Amino acid sequence: MMMHPTKARILEAALALLGRAGAEGFSASALAREAGVSKATLFHHFGTLDEVPLAAFESLWSSRMTAPHLEGLGMRAYMEALGEAVIEVAGKERAFLNAYFVFVTRALFDERMRARLSVGMDELHRSMRAALAARLPSSVSAPLLDTLTRLLGVGLDGLGLHLLLTSDEAELRKTWRMFVELIAQIEEA
Amino acid sequence: MMMHPTKARILEAALALLGRAGAEGFSASALAREAGVSKATLFHHFGTLDEVPLAAFESLWSSRMTAPHLEGLGMRAYMEALGEAVIEVAGKERAFLNAYFVFVTRALFDERMRARLSVGMDELHRSMRAALAARLPSSVSAPLLDTLTRLLGVGLDGLGLHLLLTSDEAELRKTWRMFVELIAQIEEA
Repeated sequence: MMMHPTKARILEAALALLGRAGAEGFSASALAREAGVSKATLFHHFGTLDEVPLAAFESLWSSRMTAPHLEGLGMRAYMEALGEAVIEVAGKERAFLNAYFVFVTRALFDERMRARLSVGMDELHRSMRAALAARLPSSVSAPLLDTLTRLLGVGLDGLGLHLLLTSDEAELRKTWRMFVELIAQIEEA
Repeated sequence: MMMHPTKARILEAALALLGRAGAEGFSASALAREAGVSKATLFHHFGTLDEVPLAAFESLWSSRMTAPHLEGLGMRAYMEALGEAVIEVAGKERAFLNAYFVFVTRALFDERMRARLSVGMDELHRSMRAALAARLPSSVSAPLLDTLTRLLGVGLDGLGLHLLLTSDEAELRKTWRMFVELIAQIEEA
């Protein structure tokens, strides 16, 4: 789906601002300044300020998790690459990942934000499900594929949270590899 | 380790208050009232107000995750029971689990809280590690046991977060069971 270039620019500015200033520094004025647009333009593209970070996170995750560089990879390598994408964000864009969890936590208390986040999670689920389906024998049933995709999503969020809390990248990379090895056995079963 | 009964009473009151009023309603006055102690007594037992929820979550998780009812269980049943404990908290004590993630998120931005949380996570890690060690063949190496324990922790946190965001208990129970099945293969390998 094509996005209006101004809207895309606002999302990019939102990621830059969140990464630099965190959720605290995220205001309509600061965002408009960062994107080089007026506040009127900002609210032309987004109904509320809260929508912007959610949309920005969605666009980031979906670009990282469905990036073309994942396409040629087999099952193991694909799942390892997903974990590496989260490890990389946690290492290089810590402030940004922190901001992500702030917004996720805020969504726990806000029905509308939760619904919005849920749309993004479903989209990511569908794209990971398709990627797994392409890499697994066709004998794997649809319900098994759903559960497996969900397990991958649960693992990725758990990984992100633990990376932020413990900073133990090396240990968590080993943990992710073990997870991938266990899942890969389904392929070989 | 025995805990001063007043301290234990404050922790219990903190859990009740967080479950009812969320992190927003958590103040020194409200907590002192809930526990039936003076604010002076409260601050005699805890240096700062932020320490209280963290200590309360620690005591809750450690009692749930190391409860005597887990003792007779084999590897699969033990891991299933850990997942069920999180599912139960998410179902019956939603507000409380929400508050837990609020504090975890706050810890992302506060070195001291993160250090405190890290102590609690390490303790839980040790107790789960011991439980796994008792259920696995002695041929499982110490590093493998560490990684496996960490994987279980990552999975449990991911599970909790997804339960709160999607409320899809039935799907997530299936997801957890698949995770357990995959891990249980290590026992049988």
